Amino acid sequence: MDAKTINDMLPFVLKRENVARYREGRVEIGDRRKYPFEKTSHICEDVEGVARAVEEMVTQGGGPAVAAAYALAMAARQAAALPAEKALARLKEAKTRLVNTRPTNTAMALWLEELQDIAEKALEEGEDAEAALLASIESRRDRDYEAYYRRARFGADLMQDRDGILTMCFAETSFLLALALAKQDGKRIQVFVPETRPYLQGARLTAPSIQEIGIPVTLIGDSMPAYLMSQGKIQKYFTAADLITLDGHVVNKIGTFQLAIAAHHHGIPYFAFMWGADPGHPDRDSIRIEERDQGEMRSCRDVATTLDSIPAYYPAFDITPPYLVSG
Amino acid sequence: MDAKTINDMLPFVLKRENVARYREGRVEIGDRRKYPFEKTSHICEDVEGVARAVEEMVTQGGGPAVAAAYALAMAARQAAALPAEKALARLKEAKTRLVNTRPTNTAMALWLEELQDIAEKALEEGEDAEAALLASIESRRDRDYEAYYRRARFGADLMQDRDGILTMCFAETSFLLALALAKQDGKRIQVFVPETRPYLQGARLTAPSIQEIGIPVTLIGDSMPAYLMSQGKIQKYFTAADLITLDGHVVNKIGTFQLAIAAHHHGIPYFAFMWGADPGHPDRDSIRIEERDQGEMRSCRDVATTLDSIPAYYPAFDITPPYLVSG
Repeated sequence: MDAKTINDMLPFVLKRENVARYREGRVEIGDRRKYPFEKTSHICEDVEGVARAVEEMVTQGGGPAVAAAYALAMAARQAAALPAEKALARLKEAKTRLVNTRPTNTAMALWLEELQDIAEKALEEGEDAEAALLASIESRRDRDYEAYYRRARFGADLMQDRDGILTMCFAETSFLLALALAKQDGKRIQVFVPETRPYLQGARLTAPSIQEIGIPVTLIGDSMPAYLMSQGKIQKYFTAADLITLDGHVVNKIGTFQLAIAAHHHGIPYFAFMWGADPGHPDRDSIRIEERDQGEMRSCRDVATTLDSIPAYYPAFDITPPYLVSG
Repeated sequence: MDAKTINDMLPFVLKRENVARYREGRVEIGDRRKYPFEKTSHICEDVEGVARAVEEMVTQGGGPAVAAAYALAMAARQAAALPAEKALARLKEAKTRLVNTRPTNTAMALWLEELQDIAEKALEEGEDAEAALLASIESRRDRDYEAYYRRARFGADLMQDRDGILTMCFAETSFLLALALAKQDGKRIQVFVPETRPYLQGARLTAPSIQEIGIPVTLIGDSMPAYLMSQGKIQKYFTAADLITLDGHVVNKIGTFQLAIAAHHHGIPYFAFMWGADPGHPDRDSIRIEERDQGEMRSCRDVATTLDSIPAYYPAFDITPPYLVSG
């Protein structure tokens, strides 16, 4: 399937140009904080602007790495008039700032390292570093979307006509594309989406995105999936995975594990979309679960849900052991 | 333990006078919609005012029945100058209006029926119906608090020093009193409270109430309990029960079942505080789960969490089968 056809099947948030785009020396990032209430882009004029946008959750998932890659191209353009050595120093500075926005995102750091080597080579050979970076970035993105498509094709084949499908958080491009392909195959799918408190990725991203691509979707509370399972409304459970350990533990948004237990209890298979296991993480003891600001647990879209004095706990991820995972 | 000592141990929302009180012909109902941000009462001047307060969720749990009982006393006072026959007709009219506020609350309907008989007898004998009703109501409330205490004593004995306790929604007087008694017994208890979306009973009622009685409490998301269990932070799971079927199914706030599965998976016992099984409900097939307005699932404290166009589903309760219940 060609790149344009794939892109046409995707909802607004996941279309290639809306994740992030490079235009006339500026980086434009699809603003996930405003979606679905507004479909707008956040415009960045310099590296610091991109870094802050990533830190302030303008984008998530694969978005930060793409935005940071374009930020490097922007830095190369802004340093084009400088001698090669000074330009390279500027690029290194930019890379360090960008890597620091998400210290645990090792994939992003690796890609920025590769891109810096490409820029260095271009500068040494007196070529246009900005153009070299952009060519490499677009080629990488082509490959990424091909990989999304392959995983989505596999996911769509797991879905059967009249399946009720449960997801958790925002399973991103592979899952949405799998739904679109299953629909194209003539399968009538119904998706149930827990809202994913406290950050509401399910309510704000997943449910509107699924509705956009024309698949029946129902928003539910994070407490409700087990009851729906007991009613026979759920046949499969799909999520993304932030990380898979070498021994098969799935690290994903908090709540994934609780629903995997409920699915297991009802004999419902659970599948995680993933890039493959992370060689840096052999087992669950190698995972450090990020604890986010407890204030986020005491409010919802900036409205207080309890007193400021109540202690709260917000582990951002959980770990699902391999015996609860079907594939 | 005497009534005053028990009352002193309870948090604001559950103190006898704050659930509802009768004062100079008016009914004052502790306003749970405003707690914990404000500790105020909603004042009702007539039966219609009480009926609307119940319909508009000013109070929940045991509150509606108490408020409705006082409303009948108020109706008797307002009809005191009328001939007995007309006064009785007014009381019947009031009872019908009050029963209609919560058609599924059969315990409330039964109590109002009993109170009407008491008023009728007083009117026939030329006695003060208002006074007769109030005497009966206060005596019934005395007995209720004695029963809360007996259940709480049982619950407190189930709790052990250094237990981490999970609850769901707002388990009301028996549970809060059990925590207070366990504390009095010198047990160091830590309670984890899921926020209970969409209505946030956990965040708004349970967590502040537990904090008020001086027991360490931590607010978490509805998705998080299984992860806490896997970390060894939870030793027991306690909830209230809206209804128990004769064959032992527990009907309670949506989410109770999902956490009972997670507790079972981790070998953690689950206990439900209850009045006893309901003879009108032999088994799970006799339960009709109330579906609430799906709009409540698309917002949080009146702030939109997704688009109005997204279909949602909000079953208010779920059913936990007896093999997941320890007692």
